[in-house]
Amino acid sequence: MSDIEIAQKANMKPIIGLVKERFGIDAEHLDPFGHYKAKLSLEYVNSLADKKDGKLILVTAISPTPAGEGKTTTTVGLGDALNRIGKKAIMCLREPSLGPCFGVKGGAAGGGYAQVVPMEDINLHFTGDFHAIGVAHNLLAALIDNHITQGNALGIDPRRIQWKRVVDMNDRALRKIIIGLGGIGNGYSREDGYDIVVASEVMAILCLATSRADLKERLGRIVIGYKADGKTPIYASDLKAHGAMAALLKDAIKPNLVQTLENNIAIIHGGPFANIAHGCNTVTATKTALKLADYVVTEAGFGADLGAEKFIDIKCRMSGLKPSAVVLVATVRALKFHGGIAKEDLNQENLPALEKGFENLQRHYQNITQHYGLPCVVCVNHFTFDTEAELDLLQSKCKSLGANCVVSKHWAEGGAGAENLANEIVNIVDSRESGCTYVYDENLSSWDKIATIATKLYGASGIVASAKIKDQLLTWDENYGKFPVCIAKTQMSFSTNPNLKGAPSGHTVEINEVRLSNGAGFIVAVAGDMMTMPGLPKSPAAERIDIDDDGKITGLF
Amino acid sequence: MSDIEIAQKANMKPIIGLVKERFGIDAEHLDPFGHYKAKLSLEYVNSLADKKDGKLILVTAISPTPAGEGKTTTTVGLGDALNRIGKKAIMCLREPSLGPCFGVKGGAAGGGYAQVVPMEDINLHFTGDFHAIGVAHNLLAALIDNHITQGNALGIDPRRIQWKRVVDMNDRALRKIIIGLGGIGNGYSREDGYDIVVASEVMAILCLATSRADLKERLGRIVIGYKADGKTPIYASDLKAHGAMAALLKDAIKPNLVQTLENNIAIIHGGPFANIAHGCNTVTATKTALKLADYVVTEAGFGADLGAEKFIDIKCRMSGLKPSAVVLVATVRALKFHGGIAKEDLNQENLPALEKGFENLQRHYQNITQHYGLPCVVCVNHFTFDTEAELDLLQSKCKSLGANCVVSKHWAEGGAGAENLANEIVNIVDSRESGCTYVYDENLSSWDKIATIATKLYGASGIVASAKIKDQLLTWDENYGKFPVCIAKTQMSFSTNPNLKGAPSGHTVEINEVRLSNGAGFIVAVAGDMMTMPGLPKSPAAERIDIDDDGKITGLF
Repeated sequence: MSDIEIAQKANMKPIIGLVKERFGIDAEHLDPFGHYKAKLSLEYVNSLADKKDGKLILVTAISPTPAGEGKTTTTVGLGDALNRIGKKAIMCLREPSLGPCFGVKGGAAGGGYAQVVPMEDINLHFTGDFHAIGVAHNLLAALIDNHITQGNALGIDPRRIQWKRVVDMNDRALRKIIIGLGGIGNGYSREDGYDIVVASEVMAILCLATSRADLKERLGRIVIGYKADGKTPIYASDLKAHGAMAALLKDAIKPNLVQTLENNIAIIHGGPFANIAHGCNTVTATKTALKLADYVVTEAGFGADLGAEKFIDIKCRMSGLKPSAVVLVATVRALKFHGGIAKEDLNQENLPALEKGFENLQRHYQNITQHYGLPCVVCVNHFTFDTEAELDLLQSKCKSLGANCVVSKHWAEGGAGAENLANEIVNIVDSRESGCTYVYDENLSSWDKIATIATKLYGASGIVASAKIKDQLLTWDENYGKFPVCIAKTQMSFSTNPNLKGAPSGHTVEINEVRLSNGAGFIVAVAGDMMTMPGLPKSPAAERIDIDDDGKITGLF
Repeated sequence: MSDIEIAQKANMKPIIGLVKERFGIDAEHLDPFGHYKAKLSLEYVNSLADKKDGKLILVTAISPTPAGEGKTTTTVGLGDALNRIGKKAIMCLREPSLGPCFGVKGGAAGGGYAQVVPMEDINLHFTGDFHAIGVAHNLLAALIDNHITQGNALGIDPRRIQWKRVVDMNDRALRKIIIGLGGIGNGYSREDGYDIVVASEVMAILCLATSRADLKERLGRIVIGYKADGKTPIYASDLKAHGAMAALLKDAIKPNLVQTLENNIAIIHGGPFANIAHGCNTVTATKTALKLADYVVTEAGFGADLGAEKFIDIKCRMSGLKPSAVVLVATVRALKFHGGIAKEDLNQENLPALEKGFENLQRHYQNITQHYGLPCVVCVNHFTFDTEAELDLLQSKCKSLGANCVVSKHWAEGGAGAENLANEIVNIVDSRESGCTYVYDENLSSWDKIATIATKLYGASGIVASAKIKDQLLTWDENYGKFPVCIAKTQMSFSTNPNLKGAPSGHTVEINEVRLSNGAGFIVAVAGDMMTMPGLPKSPAAERIDIDDDGKITGLF
């Protein structure tokens, strides 16, 4: 059965009753969206402030293959398993982006028997958060061009506008455009472009905001561009945009509650890009879950070099969240891929390739345990093609590393398939204090922060950049000295070259662009070509998506 | 108090309970969106098929001033009044567009004590219908450019693509753009542009569709452009886009239920532009309301020459709806405006101007009674500046015309202020069979249909167009002979010149563009410059919209 067929057979319980039963939350604190989705009021969230926090478990992965290694699936499976063994656990996931549903990747609500439901709703419009973010972003864009057309009292330099427009669609034709054509009535022409909604700074802001007031303040801080001197920033607050933007986000800021196939509660809230942003769900959602449950399982985007790094050095550092353990998801397939095997041969047993590719896992594991001081369990997300010999080899390699390794079958068996993993995690987190170290000190210069990540985590010999970029970073350091850095590079490799598999060393990381996300509160360092607007493939999934007369959807996967 | 202040003081009842109490509908048939908005399932809608229909009352207006004459306010006031005098009545309204909220016009949920609530939700994202329409529209756009980039097997002529992109924002800089710049990876460059979401053909289609199957079939019929021969149409179904588009509209197709300040049920569903589309709420909503209530009050966009004409000749004709009576909304202010008085002097008594401007009302009244054979009540939407002498003059002018004229104070007094109007309407609709005539026969050529509307309703001497446009219409007539026509012209005048107030005669209507809305099922004839993407004013309302730490919104009006 396909994911959507499994999801449509789910025995869902009405969410309001389920939340009441599990967490004693009354209906008045929940805004229902249909019968199986609900938003939790911020007033209720705030009322939990004095409660003790549960334990936070991060699910991350080795450097992924294009298909992904199953972080969401593992997060759901582990959460279901924790509930099965009698623990009170909540999963915190990212909201899927609509655009990719119509392209290659499909949905992002888990897979097999480890899914969140209603799958179609979660993958399509869900509770409207991304639409609200898109409109808030585009309102600011419209206000910028309108301000220029109406006389440009602020002196915005049209050549230095950095605030693009966004749409939740894979639409390559919008990457680079010229707007304002057609004469006087349509304003001034200039170059512009579209990003996908998940790349919006508004998304990153919503995910890091800790209250309505903080959200509005961050929105006001957004730097949309500069005056003609190239130095004086123009803020969204200069355009008086932040109040209306925050009003548009009045519901988007509330965490969304849904359930897994096994009727356990998952909070799905926010979903910033993992390249030019920090790639994890909202601080509000994670903090809320920690007040409600004893164990909270959450995921971060891409591999651990990007996702876990940003989760810890950006999200946890900014918000005070203290992780207790890390699950490092690997697949036998991906390890063989890192061992040099072509995509089409990954389903065949190949022990030498697996052994060679293990170096990728090893570096991620060592990064997590050594640089963050966090206990780490390797979770092998089991595929039906995996052979006993391969699994044995992987176990023994992990053992030699001192790593716990658990083969987990949640995709095929749901929570029951992840009980070993759950027991392992409980043992670990119950026997240590929460908390971790960071990979760099917040008082370092931005340059040194980037260099520290590159050398310590990526195995690079150093970083390089043009004088202009170095100057830009120095200028920002004067004004925004304590901002963490957010590195945007390929997720396929520790290096900036997606073809360098395994655990490359001695490479150089070239920073070819830097961006200031002043509202979110970080500096983005781009290493390589970052695609913030995907395209559709030759045969888009959209062609196969359909709905019948009774409203049943097919072709979403 | 401002509209939003009145709305925020409303004593709202939970919508699920209210719908159950009034119409006996069980919670299982309703998808709640928060506690005060709900969607009704199509299965329940279909279960009503055999019930008797209530009476349908259309609220339309004289040629409006820029501020509008209060059709929505009157629709709500009349509906509340009908309920007050013991009748079972439902109001059917259009969903407001988000974009204009941030510009000049503000929201569109009624005004004063005749409003629908929750006002902020209805004006901002409501239940997400417009976002879904926007994404469905933009998915088709992305599939078009992707198809060309991937080899253009269908032979789409990039110069003849008619399917633009949409956004629910007043953003003039997007009216005319060039997309696909930046090199090979971003596809082929071409001219494009953005319309506001209400101008999307997907909006018109959703509003005219009678089932999920009909919706998908209409979406597939959309003509996105032509092959290089300039004649062979490319349909959305050629791109296999219609299934995914219909899937994106899976919830948008369900009618939305909310309440008035007086706790009566209103259905707010769909909101196509009244110029290049037909300007009224969904057929599904109107038909559902007629099954649930004995009296259904609905509105159509702009003045009666546009809104009522399209309501009857397009919506009623296509769907078989049979109106029973028309309410023609007028204001003393607007009549003085038609009598030649400048905007800033409208609050001063001016009987000669009122008498002169009355000719505008007179022609609308005669059009309704003579060409559609419908009884018509003139409703004077009372303003505090109106003098007794003005109201007396207006009454006596109506009397000489044989028209019932009721001064209605629903804005200030809610339903109580519109009881006279309600009683008048009940007397009329209870004493006649439902139904009307159409202004043109469906077998006429498109040219003759347009000419009939222009001469009969607008008082024009005739219509003119280029040979190219005439040829285009003839070509379409061969393929789509029975399509009604949808004239896009200024709402400010019976003519195509917004400055020709009153009731101009003998003018010529120049058709300078024609468009085929093959999915919606009508031919658009554009007379004048139609703005399908508004701009923001020098001081946009967005600058004054705000939200406080408790989530309370201010500055929406």
